[in-house]
Amino acid sequence: MTTDNKPVLVQAGRLAGFIDRSLQAAGLPAADAAKVAGLMTEADLQGSDGHGVIRLPQYVKRIRAGGINTRPDMRVVSERPGMAVIDGDNGMGHLVVSRAVELAIDKAAASGVAWVGTRGSNHAGPASLYARMPVRHDMIGLYFAVGSANHLPPWGGIDMLLSTNPIAAGIPAGHEPPVVLDMATTVAAYGKVKSKAKRGEPMPEGWMIDREGRPLLDPTRAHEGFLLPIGGYKGYGLALIVGLLAGTLQGAAMGRDVVDFNKDHATVTNTGQAILVIDLKAFGDPAAFKTSVDRLVRDLRASERLPGVDRIWVPGEQSHARREAYARDGIPLAAELVAELRDLARQWDVAPLEAAAS
Amino acid sequence: MTTDNKPVLVQAGRLAGFIDRSLQAAGLPAADAAKVAGLMTEADLQGSDGHGVIRLPQYVKRIRAGGINTRPDMRVVSERPGMAVIDGDNGMGHLVVSRAVELAIDKAAASGVAWVGTRGSNHAGPASLYARMPVRHDMIGLYFAVGSANHLPPWGGIDMLLSTNPIAAGIPAGHEPPVVLDMATTVAAYGKVKSKAKRGEPMPEGWMIDREGRPLLDPTRAHEGFLLPIGGYKGYGLALIVGLLAGTLQGAAMGRDVVDFNKDHATVTNTGQAILVIDLKAFGDPAAFKTSVDRLVRDLRASERLPGVDRIWVPGEQSHARREAYARDGIPLAAELVAELRDLARQWDVAPLEAAAS
Repeated sequence: MTTDNKPVLVQAGRLAGFIDRSLQAAGLPAADAAKVAGLMTEADLQGSDGHGVIRLPQYVKRIRAGGINTRPDMRVVSERPGMAVIDGDNGMGHLVVSRAVELAIDKAAASGVAWVGTRGSNHAGPASLYARMPVRHDMIGLYFAVGSANHLPPWGGIDMLLSTNPIAAGIPAGHEPPVVLDMATTVAAYGKVKSKAKRGEPMPEGWMIDREGRPLLDPTRAHEGFLLPIGGYKGYGLALIVGLLAGTLQGAAMGRDVVDFNKDHATVTNTGQAILVIDLKAFGDPAAFKTSVDRLVRDLRASERLPGVDRIWVPGEQSHARREAYARDGIPLAAELVAELRDLARQWDVAPLEAAAS
Repeated sequence: MTTDNKPVLVQAGRLAGFIDRSLQAAGLPAADAAKVAGLMTEADLQGSDGHGVIRLPQYVKRIRAGGINTRPDMRVVSERPGMAVIDGDNGMGHLVVSRAVELAIDKAAASGVAWVGTRGSNHAGPASLYARMPVRHDMIGLYFAVGSANHLPPWGGIDMLLSTNPIAAGIPAGHEPPVVLDMATTVAAYGKVKSKAKRGEPMPEGWMIDREGRPLLDPTRAHEGFLLPIGGYKGYGLALIVGLLAGTLQGAAMGRDVVDFNKDHATVTNTGQAILVIDLKAFGDPAAFKTSVDRLVRDLRASERLPGVDRIWVPGEQSHARREAYARDGIPLAAELVAELRDLARQWDVAPLEAAAS
């Protein structure tokens, strides 16, 4: 490994091992640390690099500050055949949301469709991780979350009362990769702003504006402005609806109650997420559905193209290809991030990333 | 009533009566005609003027061309506690979707959450009509539909394989109007392009591009280009997911199977829609939820504003205010539309709009 500006290739097993021991050293039980490490590594494998190991320093800081309950008593607090709400007791978000998805899959197998929401949860990484989980059961996943910091004002306003509140969907295909959408309701997710800052690159116009409404291009000045929603007032509306569904409905934080987990490492966030799982078997023959999806995907890909366009992508296709390449060749991590993790390993007194997988 | 360029104010009861007798004259049974007339009038009352009586000529043309089944045998073709699929047997979309929403409300009361989809349906008017219906039962409605004509290519492509596939949500509030979002996944709905053409106005840049990727501003040349999705590839992804959920999942048309109902009045459209209903009572005390929504709405409205912004709106607030004003003062209809309806009344041999409500 080098510290020049070229990305460093790290094998997934090695990355997962480092995250695992770092989380254990911070106080997470072994089984929980392994589960979170697996999901964080999965995030990096699929190229969601704003939500993988880059978040580890922040998670560890929060755990050590007492802002995460490392021994949560997660419980179902309301339940019907087609729904449940899980109180995560302020555990790691990855654990709370995984539990919610597992329960929703079980319920959908009986009811056809099921919704499971969370409260008392925390930042859980990329939305697509969870929307994808039902796919291997021939089920559709639709995921909504309240973002972990408010960066979006109402349309025309400047008070940051909303977050990037993402929507994700995972839809089974047959021979094609599943259709997986994962999108912030803002033009850019805040993680992408951070990545730009880390790489020392300016942001494109249209990502952020300042409090006077002027374009904001310097990612290190992100705190002076706010994100723009997709489609103007439409994205504002979507962010609001997602927040009501993922937050308010389950009694989780929304609006001015959202804690900025980038700045505040100790206050309980009461994060909310929701997963809707749809069992294809309830609607007919899953194989027929998947054949229709394949046909649609191929029609889209075969579309005549605009001048200068090399290829048409279907949502999820690029992360699928990345996942295969990174699993084979290693995950490219920014050299600065690797250097930061090396310093932190020393500080946390854990074996560094370079050590063999534990 | 006058025929100059000022809009003509028409009382809701009078408009509903005219739609009712026009649909009956076209062959719809009395109860069905009354139900569709009520919903179309409701569309105009809330200001969804691209989806109200303006569609009557097209609906009547399709009914008379045999493109709608006026005696449909609507049936539930698959069912679980939390879901159902209704085959609308090519009946009027308003009737099929109303039936779907009623069933979803019943199922949600038992299961907490329920999804009911349609196939063999037709254009059903504004999405918000249906997303709103659960609200009076202290339930949330989320609605997805496959648009009735393809105007959107995949991102980077020029083959129009997708429609404006809308998303709508209706969320109960306490003292505030319900939060109601109703949005096409394209920057502009195709109805807005038609309105610009009717008014002889150019389109803003960003609504449409031509087959070379150049901005298309002349709405009379709309057939030479296509709509742009919100947020670029994100809106493309959303339109695709909505189409898979509202169409493919229920065995309804999607992609190249979508019939352009503006040009073709006889071919069965096999339109698909889906409603998700969430019963607030399953999650806790609906009154507490509605109080939280009120507080959030008020926080958003009270946000400090960007320079030059007079007021911050919450989705659904403007249509709520319009509905109250139009119910009191009459619905403003374009003079040309009123003239067109007068000619059609003669042609259809029904009493004109001016006649007293039946």
